[in-house]
Amino acid sequence: MSFKPTDYDPYDFANRRHIGPSPSEMDEMFARLEVADLDALIDETVPKAIRQEDALDFGAPLSERQLIFEMRQIAKRNKVLTTMIGQGYHGTVTPPAIQRNILENPAWYTAYTPYQPEISQGRLEALLNYQTMVSDLTGLEIANASLLDEATACAEAMTMALRSAKSKAKGFFIDENCHPQNIHVMKTRAAPLGIEVVVGAPETLDPEAVFGAIFQYPGTYGGLSDFSDPIAALHEAGALGIVSADPMALCLLKEPGAMGADIAVGSTQRFGVPMGYGGPHAAYIATKDAYKRALPGRIVGVSIDAQGNRAYRLALQTREQHIRREKATSNVCTAQALLAVMAGFYAVFHGPEGLKAIAQRIHLKTAAMAEGLEAAGFAIENPEFFDTITVDVGLFQKGILAGAVREGVNLRPVGKTRVGITLDETTRPEKIEAVWRAFGIERSYREAETYRLPDPLLRTSDYLQHDVFHMNRAETEMMRYMRRLADRDLALDRAMIPLGSCTMKLNSAAEMMPVSWPEFSMLHPFCPKGQAEGYTQLIDDLNAKLCAITGYDAISMQPNSGAQGEYAGLLTIAAYHRAKGEGHRNVCLIPVNAHGTNPASAQMVGWKVVAVKCDEMGSIDLEDFRAKAEKHSAELAGTMITYPSTHGVFEETVKDVCAITHEHGGQVYIDGANLNAMVGLSKPGDLGGDVSHLNLHKTFCIPHGGGGPGMGPIGVKAHLAEHLPSDPLAEDGPGPVSAAPFGSPSLLPISWAYIKMTGGAGLTQATKVAILNANYIAKRLEGSYDVLYKGRKGRVAHECILDVRPFQKSAGVTVDDIAKRLMDCGFHAPTMSWPVAGTLMVEPTESETKAELDRFCDAMLAIREEIRAIEEGRMDAENNPLKHAPHTMEDLVRDWDRPYSREEGCFPAGAFRVDKYWPPVNRVDNVYGDRHLICTCPPMEDYAEAAE
Amino acid sequence: MSFKPTDYDPYDFANRRHIGPSPSEMDEMFARLEVADLDALIDETVPKAIRQEDALDFGAPLSERQLIFEMRQIAKRNKVLTTMIGQGYHGTVTPPAIQRNILENPAWYTAYTPYQPEISQGRLEALLNYQTMVSDLTGLEIANASLLDEATACAEAMTMALRSAKSKAKGFFIDENCHPQNIHVMKTRAAPLGIEVVVGAPETLDPEAVFGAIFQYPGTYGGLSDFSDPIAALHEAGALGIVSADPMALCLLKEPGAMGADIAVGSTQRFGVPMGYGGPHAAYIATKDAYKRALPGRIVGVSIDAQGNRAYRLALQTREQHIRREKATSNVCTAQALLAVMAGFYAVFHGPEGLKAIAQRIHLKTAAMAEGLEAAGFAIENPEFFDTITVDVGLFQKGILAGAVREGVNLRPVGKTRVGITLDETTRPEKIEAVWRAFGIERSYREAETYRLPDPLLRTSDYLQHDVFHMNRAETEMMRYMRRLADRDLALDRAMIPLGSCTMKLNSAAEMMPVSWPEFSMLHPFCPKGQAEGYTQLIDDLNAKLCAITGYDAISMQPNSGAQGEYAGLLTIAAYHRAKGEGHRNVCLIPVNAHGTNPASAQMVGWKVVAVKCDEMGSIDLEDFRAKAEKHSAELAGTMITYPSTHGVFEETVKDVCAITHEHGGQVYIDGANLNAMVGLSKPGDLGGDVSHLNLHKTFCIPHGGGGPGMGPIGVKAHLAEHLPSDPLAEDGPGPVSAAPFGSPSLLPISWAYIKMTGGAGLTQATKVAILNANYIAKRLEGSYDVLYKGRKGRVAHECILDVRPFQKSAGVTVDDIAKRLMDCGFHAPTMSWPVAGTLMVEPTESETKAELDRFCDAMLAIREEIRAIEEGRMDAENNPLKHAPHTMEDLVRDWDRPYSREEGCFPAGAFRVDKYWPPVNRVDNVYGDRHLICTCPPMEDYAEAAE
Repeated sequence: MSFKPTDYDPYDFANRRHIGPSPSEMDEMFARLEVADLDALIDETVPKAIRQEDALDFGAPLSERQLIFEMRQIAKRNKVLTTMIGQGYHGTVTPPAIQRNILENPAWYTAYTPYQPEISQGRLEALLNYQTMVSDLTGLEIANASLLDEATACAEAMTMALRSAKSKAKGFFIDENCHPQNIHVMKTRAAPLGIEVVVGAPETLDPEAVFGAIFQYPGTYGGLSDFSDPIAALHEAGALGIVSADPMALCLLKEPGAMGADIAVGSTQRFGVPMGYGGPHAAYIATKDAYKRALPGRIVGVSIDAQGNRAYRLALQTREQHIRREKATSNVCTAQALLAVMAGFYAVFHGPEGLKAIAQRIHLKTAAMAEGLEAAGFAIENPEFFDTITVDVGLFQKGILAGAVREGVNLRPVGKTRVGITLDETTRPEKIEAVWRAFGIERSYREAETYRLPDPLLRTSDYLQHDVFHMNRAETEMMRYMRRLADRDLALDRAMIPLGSCTMKLNSAAEMMPVSWPEFSMLHPFCPKGQAEGYTQLIDDLNAKLCAITGYDAISMQPNSGAQGEYAGLLTIAAYHRAKGEGHRNVCLIPVNAHGTNPASAQMVGWKVVAVKCDEMGSIDLEDFRAKAEKHSAELAGTMITYPSTHGVFEETVKDVCAITHEHGGQVYIDGANLNAMVGLSKPGDLGGDVSHLNLHKTFCIPHGGGGPGMGPIGVKAHLAEHLPSDPLAEDGPGPVSAAPFGSPSLLPISWAYIKMTGGAGLTQATKVAILNANYIAKRLEGSYDVLYKGRKGRVAHECILDVRPFQKSAGVTVDDIAKRLMDCGFHAPTMSWPVAGTLMVEPTESETKAELDRFCDAMLAIREEIRAIEEGRMDAENNPLKHAPHTMEDLVRDWDRPYSREEGCFPAGAFRVDKYWPPVNRVDNVYGDRHLICTCPPMEDYAEAAE
Repeated sequence: MSFKPTDYDPYDFANRRHIGPSPSEMDEMFARLEVADLDALIDETVPKAIRQEDALDFGAPLSERQLIFEMRQIAKRNKVLTTMIGQGYHGTVTPPAIQRNILENPAWYTAYTPYQPEISQGRLEALLNYQTMVSDLTGLEIANASLLDEATACAEAMTMALRSAKSKAKGFFIDENCHPQNIHVMKTRAAPLGIEVVVGAPETLDPEAVFGAIFQYPGTYGGLSDFSDPIAALHEAGALGIVSADPMALCLLKEPGAMGADIAVGSTQRFGVPMGYGGPHAAYIATKDAYKRALPGRIVGVSIDAQGNRAYRLALQTREQHIRREKATSNVCTAQALLAVMAGFYAVFHGPEGLKAIAQRIHLKTAAMAEGLEAAGFAIENPEFFDTITVDVGLFQKGILAGAVREGVNLRPVGKTRVGITLDETTRPEKIEAVWRAFGIERSYREAETYRLPDPLLRTSDYLQHDVFHMNRAETEMMRYMRRLADRDLALDRAMIPLGSCTMKLNSAAEMMPVSWPEFSMLHPFCPKGQAEGYTQLIDDLNAKLCAITGYDAISMQPNSGAQGEYAGLLTIAAYHRAKGEGHRNVCLIPVNAHGTNPASAQMVGWKVVAVKCDEMGSIDLEDFRAKAEKHSAELAGTMITYPSTHGVFEETVKDVCAITHEHGGQVYIDGANLNAMVGLSKPGDLGGDVSHLNLHKTFCIPHGGGGPGMGPIGVKAHLAEHLPSDPLAEDGPGPVSAAPFGSPSLLPISWAYIKMTGGAGLTQATKVAILNANYIAKRLEGSYDVLYKGRKGRVAHECILDVRPFQKSAGVTVDDIAKRLMDCGFHAPTMSWPVAGTLMVEPTESETKAELDRFCDAMLAIREEIRAIEEGRMDAENNPLKHAPHTMEDLVRDWDRPYSREEGCFPAGAFRVDKYWPPVNRVDNVYGDRHLICTCPPMEDYAEAAE
């Protein structure tokens, strides 16, 4: 024998690529933690009582190459046809430079939500571009930085109208020309809130009976109407008018603002974001200035920094759900930031000239299509249209649809006798001829002779007048603009993002690659099932694996975010109660340290939130819990808990909490936000949970994209399975929560890839190392920072809360000062002031190496020494590096009059030298920005001014 | 009619994406240049006499989407089978993180050759890693930063031995076990140099008859030998021993250095670089310290900067061909930098443990394969092997090969009766079983029971001991390392690279995408032709288009670089002369301002170079030319000219030069380096050229990759077509110049995409705008810098030479000072001191916007003012921003004792503020580095030291 084969496995994805600490690093960490090995640490951390007995087993883990190979086999089972289904989803051209430099670039896709504005200026600018685009196209003053999909945007608009309208009516009118999935999602949302929905033709609207009404523009069957009159009537009655509008159509057509609309919503998917079998893509919402405080979701605004320079940041943050809690009627948290950025760049790439040209071409092709049909004697239902026509073909519907499929085209079945045809910028003339053939017409494509837009609806106002939409559009310039913005931000591709509120682990390149493949990206959500067999296989298999991981029996992939998962989970519970004849149950017990979305979600299903106390360890006060459960026994709908708790502790009482809830007829919702501390060790379903949502963008490697996309599927026990969200096109059932049946399915290859490459043992190891990493940080910071809430053996779970409140008193140093100072060290701050005000919550995840953990700890320890210097009077309490943080390059250039050196200011422990990351602005003034609210791109003169 | 369709075409790739200046910017430029329009400028610039009459017409240009669609149709015609052909090309796993973050990242692929070290530290470090890897694996002291392919590396090693050996023998011995393409390329190279090649079994070597010998390790048929004895015998005779070795095999086997080899060469393709139907991938060459000055190509070395900090730069640059000119025996210029970077990262990703494990797995699978065959009675020719076995199957060869293809596997035909089987890290057990089936064996895969490596050849030395190969290999860490290195460099994704010597235009994302597709990347160069129909279609069509553009009749895609194209072109001419019975013709006329590779290439085909004078305008002195042509009439082989000239002028005499050459029986070689000034306006073939090479990496959008890949196909007139390089596996014909039939074909989709999307009119417009941009710069700098060499109407071609020599005298400012100062402004310097010493040559290309040209001009004008301040005594002649350039972040942090401000030092005109690019080091000391030559990664202590 020539050699003894090494036991090093270079293809071991779990232990060599995904998990940060190497085996030898782990040994050093065990020594520091004074434990024999990883299992010993886990035994001290995770209570025996909640541990699962069986090991996860998903077969041999795949190498990256095997994964790609298997993924290609799956992809081949999806058939990419030309889409003419419409209904809110369209073929679109993603400019290749955007695909390469945004969608496939970790600098963009691994970024976190821009809560720390100083290190997020790049994506904040990109999102401001997006908002400006939406505001311009809709003709409304203010837009947010995206919502999850058009249907939920409609629902958000409805509840926003409920909050904002003067009218006290409980009715809400829905134009029957709305896309069916929009109607169904609004109905789902309306029911628990007591909103009485009326669906009908616009002319049947009774303004006095409603607080608002929504119209689709163009209508789902292609018709075009001016809604100015009904909106005026609504206004007279104190109600609000909402228009759900296709932004591409708005490039040619009169904008909602000009019709007097109060709110506009819609999808920006066709602005360069692939259909992806349903998502992800960004929905928009825009409104009048008067209603800005009622606007859901995140809004980017313009402010100034400590030097008076222009700086962007999230505006009106007090609107967010973690402040509003029980008063919320929206739990929107995740947005679709990455997709909004793409759509915004699409507008920058094309400018108003380009968008107008694209819209015109789409219309001209549609007109040609109509002409061909009419010439052959077919009648178009809607003689005027933008991109969609509907034809009644009677008995021939099935035949024509099948004929079109044979020609490689999907048309839309409408009812039993009609066919819808929608064109887009990708429609090739050959495919128009192919549709004609499906109708039995032999005809060659020719330009339309008559355009079919109603003259009174032609847009007369300009849009996209800001300079950014008039940049030179050469790819060289665009590429550099994207790079400059990316370079202003700090994302996972440069440093750890140790957020307790989000699990920022590796999003590996192998996991990301299939997302761009046409077989996953180019399917319409309502294409015939037989064309999506690859997706079906992938989703079924992922469901099975997630069930095995969580101990549940069924999964719904529909929710597009964690918060939406919560909502869907509670809806499922409510439907279950109703089915049992206990629809009156409407009390929800929630501990005070819950994530803010929990009470907001309970609110949305019409439940009353009863808060449960926590003890000094941060754990649920079992006595208080028992008392409240008994008190509300008859009305108890459910309990919402997070496990391990938001305080980062494995509470030993979890099974009691579940049992008590069940005793009183309630169902248990276990928030899955912290599932990364459980996979392979414990299953929420085994603990007594009836429902959980799983943040695939936390535990299962979907990247955060700078604030979305996300995926929040829910797992349920068997008794709840029949009450899961129904298909968005189904007329009955519990109702859908998203526009598309599987939420944002083009992200699912990421999570599936992660599980397949990591394997059962690898997933379990990842969980253990996540706990190891958190405990290592807690240990290294011991003595300098107090760690709040440890388990009985002095260990934390996968995150730890650092108590920095004492420094306020001892040195006047706030949690903000520390967070900003960490930027000087080259780090994104941990989660600030949540779940405990004035603290920092740190979650390193398993993907960070010991070296990076040490760099972070070095930075934190050095900051502690700076605080000590203030405490001991060696450093001025106001004029010090903490208060001036973050430092910028401009600080270095300017005259330096600080009592500390440039070196001390700009290169604290942890900061790289050559590879130093510089925040592009000094500390941002939030108050100024909210007082002088600007949420669209400011004129260029202002930039020049700020630069002076 | 509802609207008048806009004439703005959003999909117009040529005018909206590729060409920089927008129509309105161009109007401003015309005004500045005082011309009515673009055609007026071109009329003043390009002499009527040389203009082509017909317009280029390639049909309607494709949009990006149409391009991708058509490319997919072509890709489908390539069939991806499992490759077991071996012969120097292997399946390999490109780590997805490397694919995404290097190969598909413009920060890496758009970079230029690191001649300006201060802004190239990232890729210099990556290449130093590569060199260290090669040096370690081969056991030799010094390696270069890559050659074009293994076969040309063999030829380079041969000529290096010729230069270095003490022996004066003219013979060179080639082991018959060398890959056939290596043998053929060496024979091609040897013939004109008078080297007498002997091919035979190692035991037949006569050391006295040769100056060197080369052995393949493992042999092409899989055999393993220790070459220590023949090498010792060679040394005794004053000759050199060369080993061409597979670096993967060296992870297990005794290294060439340990055998006493003087030079080792080979391909690093299987270190993570896809086969790509032949290329590109990086070949390596390594040697003993004693021969370092004879090493061809670029070498990265370690030096210090002005502050004494460690800095990398190209070492021993005086070896480069532009210095050696007539004395050269190598014209190596382009390397395969991007691919070398990938291979180096592959080693960093895997480390010695990983590489060893991969090599072992390959061997174990091969042993299993052999066992299965032997168990069925087949005899393996080479009982000991690493990854390749050969079996004589007699009459069944064709049947077995065809059977394997049916099973999805390509085996290697060897002679008429033998079959070669080579395994690699991607070989799946199912495919081993499939091969057995092709042999008629039904057998299940099982681990090999006997290993088949000869114990005496087992490697006993360590390798990859440097810390970089022992980094934590978590993808998070690797991704950040790649990002940090990328961020240290300045590439096209951040700023114009206005190099007169290279055309640094847009490499668009759409053009780049197909390169990564498996149908293009995973084909073996010697796979059955029928499996590469897509490539055939693409290459045939590209050939036709390039012929239309150049006025030639045939193209050879074989040359891998411009210099290799020159060499191939001259070989073609020489073969033509020989065929006509005029093989004695061996004089080549070359003007003195020619690119340095020209005389070097002439030298390589055994020609004598006769220099022709230029006049004061930089144009060929026609009288001198005529005189020399007459003088050498009988021996005139050819003339080599560049058009437009390297001085950036359209010489009006070009047709005369060609005619005179022809009169005297010579052939005309027109260097295609400046073809970007001609496409659509003028064809070299029409001017009288017989041959030209085309730098696809200049004019046709293949990115520079930080110093390669490149492609230098040659176009010839019909009478030369039969003398073009022959297939590398063909036993007769003119001989090949590269290892693979089509050079680096996986790059060809880029150039094809460019032509298809730009179209005939677009290509012509691009040429015109390239000329516009150059003239605009010349105009804006007028009065501040003298532009050398203008045409008769005062215009330059697509580039201009700025004369900065006077400043040496007036202010002591050198061309180097200006180049380094431009880094402070955020620019890569123009080409320095070429073709005229002490000048700067600027070529902006058509892809730069007016804004970027203005930023550059602003920077140059501000530099001129700084020079003026020195001239006028307002600024110190030594202590000034020019002499201290480039400035680093560290300069800002340090105490500032300069007579100018931090602001003046670090933010000169042109520099971005927030988006400022910081060179990571101060000015690099080249002399120090060459005096203290270190060309592998220094130990980490040294880094710590340097940082202090």
